[in-house]
Amino acid sequence: MSSPYEAAVQRLIDSFGRLPGIGPKSAQRIAFHILKTSSKDVSELIDAIDFAKSNVHFCEICFNLAQESQCAICSSNSRDRSIICVVEEPKDMVAIERTSEFKGLYHVLQGTISPIDGIGPDQLRISELLKRVTQSQDLTQDLDLTSQVVEVIVATNPTVEGDATGMYIARLLEPFGVKVTKLASGLPVGGDLEYADEITLARALEGRLVYA
Amino acid sequence: MSSPYEAAVQRLIDSFGRLPGIGPKSAQRIAFHILKTSSKDVSELIDAIDFAKSNVHFCEICFNLAQESQCAICSSNSRDRSIICVVEEPKDMVAIERTSEFKGLYHVLQGTISPIDGIGPDQLRISELLKRVTQSQDLTQDLDLTSQVVEVIVATNPTVEGDATGMYIARLLEPFGVKVTKLASGLPVGGDLEYADEITLARALEGRLVYA
Repeated sequence: MSSPYEAAVQRLIDSFGRLPGIGPKSAQRIAFHILKTSSKDVSELIDAIDFAKSNVHFCEICFNLAQESQCAICSSNSRDRSIICVVEEPKDMVAIERTSEFKGLYHVLQGTISPIDGIGPDQLRISELLKRVTQSQDLTQDLDLTSQVVEVIVATNPTVEGDATGMYIARLLEPFGVKVTKLASGLPVGGDLEYADEITLARALEGRLVYA
Repeated sequence: MSSPYEAAVQRLIDSFGRLPGIGPKSAQRIAFHILKTSSKDVSELIDAIDFAKSNVHFCEICFNLAQESQCAICSSNSRDRSIICVVEEPKDMVAIERTSEFKGLYHVLQGTISPIDGIGPDQLRISELLKRVTQSQDLTQDLDLTSQVVEVIVATNPTVEGDATGMYIARLLEPFGVKVTKLASGLPVGGDLEYADEITLARALEGRLVYA
């Protein structure tokens, strides 16, 4: 026989095998778990997938994941609307939120510019970022100054694609007089000089600080 | 906020995180994949889970996974019904099928005796194995001799629990005059003496063969 499993079991294994980071062995393990576990737990999994898929959309402002038309951060009154932090994915936003250091808004690009994968600026939410910045400047000519965007922090990943995307965004926003900053590169806290790669160490040297 | 994600997203991450071998990072990655991917692919995953869960049962003879009341192997006419190979899980059966060396039937224990996990012989399909062996002997007194079980090959994993379970089964079947064998332990083909652990090497010595 071509597949040693019954068709339904093989189909279940294949379905899990298509998820990211799940190889054939893990897919098999998960499939057996599903078949062994209580129907209640399996229904809960199916419901969670179904509910999330039908109720989670992108925030109309920042393109973070949202259950309403705007995400919890964009609709919050306690955030500083003058600073936008640009990230690649929702999980990067979560990482920054965990620091509790940032009180501004976000903008989720949903990827990075990567010509190899056929992803150019148009596939990302870059034009929407530009619109947010320019619209805030128009509005504030008549209205409150507090919602004018004064700084955009580019928090893309410190990779070739992330850096290139950041550079692209910085050049794009240049004409609009908004301050564009990027995250500092350097040694991770608790890290060890000996184990730092050359590029990280070079960046740490380049960005060296004077003792206050 | 306690969870930085929307409730539906967090619930999706948690649901995947409960599957075996999926840590928090993988669960997050899978959840984002689900939210990004087409609804068609997600429906296919849900259907596969649902269909398998409602249509896959245990084979009434060998307790392998089956879509009908009997699995494909038990209902096949081309298998040798006089030899039963006892395995722990369906995936072990699949591993043996891959060798194309075995043409008999299987018996899936659905685990091993493991007092630490509270699993005794009664939680496994051992009594059902005994019944298969004894019933085949009864039947063959009047009927065909071909379906009498003459050999039980114990193919549990070469672990403490697997070996103990095998030993238990061998003792249990002793009074019924059926031949009980176990898989050979020794050096894996393509392996290296230098890297073999002592126990494997000791077993290889113990089970040494005379050149034919």
